[in-house]
Amino acid sequence: MSKYWNENTKNLEPYVPGEQPKDKQYIKLNTNENPYPPSAKVIAAIKNAANEDLRLYPDPCCEELRQTIAGYYNLTAEQVFVGNGSDEILAFSFAAFFDPGEAAILFPDITYNFYPVYADLYRLKYKLIPVDNEFTIPVERFFIQNGGIILPNPNAPTAKYLPISRIKEIVEYNCRYSERIVIIDEAYIDFGGESAVELLNDYPNLLVIQTLSKSRSLAGLRIGFALGHKDLIEGLETIKSSINSYTLDRLAIIGAIEAFKDEEYFQEIRRKIITTREYVTKELTAIGFHVIDSRANFIFISHSQIYAGELYQKLREKGVLVRYFNKPRIDNFLRISIGSEGEMGSFLRILKEIL
Amino acid sequence: MSKYWNENTKNLEPYVPGEQPKDKQYIKLNTNENPYPPSAKVIAAIKNAANEDLRLYPDPCCEELRQTIAGYYNLTAEQVFVGNGSDEILAFSFAAFFDPGEAAILFPDITYNFYPVYADLYRLKYKLIPVDNEFTIPVERFFIQNGGIILPNPNAPTAKYLPISRIKEIVEYNCRYSERIVIIDEAYIDFGGESAVELLNDYPNLLVIQTLSKSRSLAGLRIGFALGHKDLIEGLETIKSSINSYTLDRLAIIGAIEAFKDEEYFQEIRRKIITTREYVTKELTAIGFHVIDSRANFIFISHSQIYAGELYQKLREKGVLVRYFNKPRIDNFLRISIGSEGEMGSFLRILKEIL
Repeated sequence: MSKYWNENTKNLEPYVPGEQPKDKQYIKLNTNENPYPPSAKVIAAIKNAANEDLRLYPDPCCEELRQTIAGYYNLTAEQVFVGNGSDEILAFSFAAFFDPGEAAILFPDITYNFYPVYADLYRLKYKLIPVDNEFTIPVERFFIQNGGIILPNPNAPTAKYLPISRIKEIVEYNCRYSERIVIIDEAYIDFGGESAVELLNDYPNLLVIQTLSKSRSLAGLRIGFALGHKDLIEGLETIKSSINSYTLDRLAIIGAIEAFKDEEYFQEIRRKIITTREYVTKELTAIGFHVIDSRANFIFISHSQIYAGELYQKLREKGVLVRYFNKPRIDNFLRISIGSEGEMGSFLRILKEIL
Repeated sequence: MSKYWNENTKNLEPYVPGEQPKDKQYIKLNTNENPYPPSAKVIAAIKNAANEDLRLYPDPCCEELRQTIAGYYNLTAEQVFVGNGSDEILAFSFAAFFDPGEAAILFPDITYNFYPVYADLYRLKYKLIPVDNEFTIPVERFFIQNGGIILPNPNAPTAKYLPISRIKEIVEYNCRYSERIVIIDEAYIDFGGESAVELLNDYPNLLVIQTLSKSRSLAGLRIGFALGHKDLIEGLETIKSSINSYTLDRLAIIGAIEAFKDEEYFQEIRRKIITTREYVTKELTAIGFHVIDSRANFIFISHSQIYAGELYQKLREKGVLVRYFNKPRIDNFLRISIGSEGEMGSFLRILKEIL
């Protein structure tokens, strides 16, 4: 803190990402990274693009990437926005569509911890809608006057999924009555959920945000995208172009394009992760864990015999990193990313030793 | 525009970067890119880092890169912030240090067009300090109560440079009297100017922002950095971590580190650009151009016999892209990036044909 900071900055509490310790090699199940490498075609394309053209600015409009994503989802390029990870796009969305002078925005009380940070950054009022004891999002409670709604589906860190029909009810309500945007944050949708993309052409107030960090194994390349009505995309472009003309570098653009072209590999690795998740869930249930039904590449678990905070520590000592949120309602749960079969085998073995 | 945009977004006029036309091959002297490729060591390191680790998040603190930059400038890593291009860092600086509730921030009337955009984005009051007819920044006029000061040195798009002694006067005034930050935007400092970095340890209110886009030929990789007192850097980290935990991807981090290690190549290409600039300046002066004294990798020129807007069009028709700002006080000037010797030879030849 210093006297040169402005008032808003003095009051901010930034988001804290999962730890990246360097003290030793861990089985790293704490940041929902994909255990499988990116497509070999992505790697080859990046190596090929690492050339003297790096002296030139990237395309500020990311035209080719937007065309590629549009083609993949049967949309037009005007319905696609791309950014430096989905977090940046979330931040731009809060800046573009939510208004400090308006009614409170709504999101679940248990959700992605970045939302209240964005709200504070842009001085927005927000109202937390409590999920139930099984972490289900109570759709009806969103049917109130609001300044906009944001929901992850599946939710984080609970992994709990809302069927598309329920998402539609929220979007429909806000389209008709509140006339406000609904943002569905689908960072984990590729692991078994159904995307709200199919609702896009019916609802001009729906924005769907996804990322290449999880299902396409590109956390290290920083690419996210948003899909929605062209007027919403134009709003995001307005914010982006008021901050940074070029948010995606040349290599990220190339890598992202190739990732969408390798459908076979994408299907293969997401199936593998789903299979591993189902197997791990069964094993954990067998040894007394309560595992919240997951459609993500992570699971949210608790055990009646051992406190989650203690289990987190013991796993860490034995070389397994998982995520523990020391917060009300979820302080007896651990979030475990789904690693490779081998990693999850080791995790289960170590867990059984501890128990 | 749509009813889903908030009030602020509706009123924003985003920055427009230099055009990147795809209709034909141009001699591209419009976005101040470096005509020489990045260091071969940068390319090699990126190719090497294009591997399966891209599935993992980058280091959110960019520790190794910050250490490298700190070492280069004889600072500590706590005095270094890195970001997705210097524009992103400028945006974060406006968000961290300038306050909508405070006195107006100050910047020259002729300067980087992004500053008023940032000010509008964050709803800041600003006051333009008019430069003189030779585009010199009148230092004394900054000695007034203010909410902070931002200046590029050399200035853009004029290329005009302020000696470090004059920068020091502004920083000193604001440190003693206004107790506000002074941001020196040194995107072009490596082309013959003296950096304000040497003042850093004396002034806790000084922030220096630089980029790897120009002098290190990495516009396509998107890396900028800021140097300042650790409390200022912490302010930038607070904003960044309230928007996006990972703004630099793995390849940008690696490329930037290598760029700082290849000092020999860096010195070689910046010397070449300076030499070409001096040659082109002499040639242009000989054919009647008024060339503003430049310490940048571009020049700002006008001619009494031909209107700049017309010359811009004619150059474009003949395959040379330069930047024209159709704005009061500078509408009879063109900004010309310094290309390779060959490119500038062609530029001069085509220019003489037109005249």
